[in-house]
Amino acid sequence: MREEIRQMGLDARTAAHEMAKIGSAQKRQALEAVAVALGEARAAIDAANRKDVAEALDKGLAAAKVDRLRLTDKVLTEMTDGLREIALLPDPVGEITRLWTRPNGLRVGRMRIPLGVVGIVYESRPNVTIDAAALCIKAGNAVVLRGGSEAFHSNQCLAKILQESLNTSGLPAQAVQLVGTTDRQAVLELLQLEEYVDVMIPRGGEDLIRFVTANARMPVLKHYKGVCHVYVDAGADFEMAEKICLNAKVQRPGVCNAMETLLVHQDVAAGFLPSMAAAFRREGVELRGCDRTRMIVPECVAATEEDWYAEYLDLILAVKVVDSMEEAISHLTTYGSQHTEAIVTRNFDRAHRFLQEVQSSLVLVNASTRFNDGFQLGLGAEIGISTSRLHAFGPMGVEELTTTKFIAMGDGQLRE
Amino acid sequence: MREEIRQMGLDARTAAHEMAKIGSAQKRQALEAVAVALGEARAAIDAANRKDVAEALDKGLAAAKVDRLRLTDKVLTEMTDGLREIALLPDPVGEITRLWTRPNGLRVGRMRIPLGVVGIVYESRPNVTIDAAALCIKAGNAVVLRGGSEAFHSNQCLAKILQESLNTSGLPAQAVQLVGTTDRQAVLELLQLEEYVDVMIPRGGEDLIRFVTANARMPVLKHYKGVCHVYVDAGADFEMAEKICLNAKVQRPGVCNAMETLLVHQDVAAGFLPSMAAAFRREGVELRGCDRTRMIVPECVAATEEDWYAEYLDLILAVKVVDSMEEAISHLTTYGSQHTEAIVTRNFDRAHRFLQEVQSSLVLVNASTRFNDGFQLGLGAEIGISTSRLHAFGPMGVEELTTTKFIAMGDGQLRE
Repeated sequence: MREEIRQMGLDARTAAHEMAKIGSAQKRQALEAVAVALGEARAAIDAANRKDVAEALDKGLAAAKVDRLRLTDKVLTEMTDGLREIALLPDPVGEITRLWTRPNGLRVGRMRIPLGVVGIVYESRPNVTIDAAALCIKAGNAVVLRGGSEAFHSNQCLAKILQESLNTSGLPAQAVQLVGTTDRQAVLELLQLEEYVDVMIPRGGEDLIRFVTANARMPVLKHYKGVCHVYVDAGADFEMAEKICLNAKVQRPGVCNAMETLLVHQDVAAGFLPSMAAAFRREGVELRGCDRTRMIVPECVAATEEDWYAEYLDLILAVKVVDSMEEAISHLTTYGSQHTEAIVTRNFDRAHRFLQEVQSSLVLVNASTRFNDGFQLGLGAEIGISTSRLHAFGPMGVEELTTTKFIAMGDGQLRE
Repeated sequence: MREEIRQMGLDARTAAHEMAKIGSAQKRQALEAVAVALGEARAAIDAANRKDVAEALDKGLAAAKVDRLRLTDKVLTEMTDGLREIALLPDPVGEITRLWTRPNGLRVGRMRIPLGVVGIVYESRPNVTIDAAALCIKAGNAVVLRGGSEAFHSNQCLAKILQESLNTSGLPAQAVQLVGTTDRQAVLELLQLEEYVDVMIPRGGEDLIRFVTANARMPVLKHYKGVCHVYVDAGADFEMAEKICLNAKVQRPGVCNAMETLLVHQDVAAGFLPSMAAAFRREGVELRGCDRTRMIVPECVAATEEDWYAEYLDLILAVKVVDSMEEAISHLTTYGSQHTEAIVTRNFDRAHRFLQEVQSSLVLVNASTRFNDGFQLGLGAEIGISTSRLHAFGPMGVEELTTTKFIAMGDGQLRE
């Protein structure tokens, strides 16, 4: 197995060298070919997917998890639409981002190039196989994929379609490779290949991400969790604040950019919280509050220290009344995960300071935390969200799958 | 010890939060205060440095290594000049690098912020203590330093001066901390602190860098070695090519951006190599060549497969005659280290293609490989060179010690 995984790495490195030279038109055409091929292979995809679903049901997997496995018509349409959108994004490769001239006449610049080989270790949803591969191809990379064992047959089928389409379009088929075993040892081998894999992106539960981070020799782009905050400032527009808080909590509670803790300035707590709590009650949200919150909202459960750290991913919300914006920032810095924080305010100076001082991957004024998403922020698509600060901080789109090299053009310059 | 190192990490994180809020003028003033303090503490620095030198001599350290330890007048002046130059660089923190508006009216941008806590593990030269700390402070970071055991007393003295100057200037003294033991276990503990240290930068020999990479839980910015190439193209200006090759090889052979392999197009080999070889002979450079090189330069030793991989860091050069630029690129991709490659050519199309297709951290046309240096390329200073492609590829200056977060300003936008 070690040899097999090493060979995949070597093949990926070779494919990456070829991919770096492929022009924009050819990459676009290849992605569109994948979209067409997915439509044509509908029967094969269904058959593979049915195997995974049947095995999942046999194993007694929770219904929600089985649902995430299913490649329904809706999911298939989203996959092909996504492919076509990625195909049409501007190609970042080759862009000269800056160019300047040194006193000795040397012209120095930075040119955007592919990262090289991207490794992705993910769980469950088989559509990630297509989305992630498409973004990697667009940015001129090769990718090594390791999907979850539950989606094994679906992933195999999708990877085969990808490879055939690349081949037909004149791109190296080895630019997309799927680890063909569900043995966990294969992941460990993959994580050792620092000479072949330039970056590893784990997507899934916190356990998977911690396993990858602890064992990877190459850099890892990841976030462990999203403990996101909304701070309702003194003088905030209550109606706007209530809508933003509801959207941030209940629009899709199970995702990383949903609000987990609400912070309210003491001056507006008594005015804002009763109506807000009633709105949450109507949506079935359980509130866990500090003492001051519970004086205003008596039915609220007492929050413990653990609640301030919690990523519920559920219809539960921690609520704390704070003395000032400084206390709000201090709280979210201490208990948060540097993922997403929003302020609702009318005050220019505090909006400005919140944007400056909060060091999370997305900081918002008067908008929902649910916007921390590559598509929503205008990156076209995303391969994940990073709360590691190196290389990428926030949603990662096509550009985050590239790097820049230095270039220099001279006429015989020597170092003195 | 584990507790002590963890406490340093926690203190660094706390200091980093404070540092992120410090304004440009105050950081500049603090760096200038360090320069003044270094001059005033000359006697204390001398005393500490003499202890290190005496211990090194007792241990029988090689003369070259002892020399690198010495904080001479020249080194001290370079340190204070460097501090003043870094103080005057533009402050990257707070810059909004891009700002765009989404269809829903949300204004989205990217704002430059400090990386947070930088860890630096280095060997020998004590001036790194000042240079590295100054760059980290300029970019608004906190830094944890672990110097080599040979420079223990010098580093302690310099770190104390840094901390006192920070304190006097109203910056958190814990923004610069030096691990106060030479026990290697302390490095291992430091490398586990992923929640406190955002990035680790090892500087020193390949063994140290491999040790740090293998054990670090946080991202590592590094290069293992520099196997740099100059390719002399068909039709090149021989005089320019000879000057560039000499400069790249002999101006300072012991550094990572010196040329290690010369590639010559077959059409010009017979015309170019005899005079070039004579020039190298005059400078005492030993040549190791391929068969075709040896037919033109008979005194040249036969190169083995190992020579193409070698980073000599010495007056030795591997020489190979190639059929084409494609073979040159294929050779440097296979045997090189993605550090620095130069082409000497008069041909526009090949210059253009070499710049596009060579995927090294610096690619030059008609200039010496020795320019791969942050100061030379115009970054003002450098904290090291990265050949990992993540985050930074090439010399790392102040900007590479920052990251960007996303910001978003709305008027009540919700996710649909």
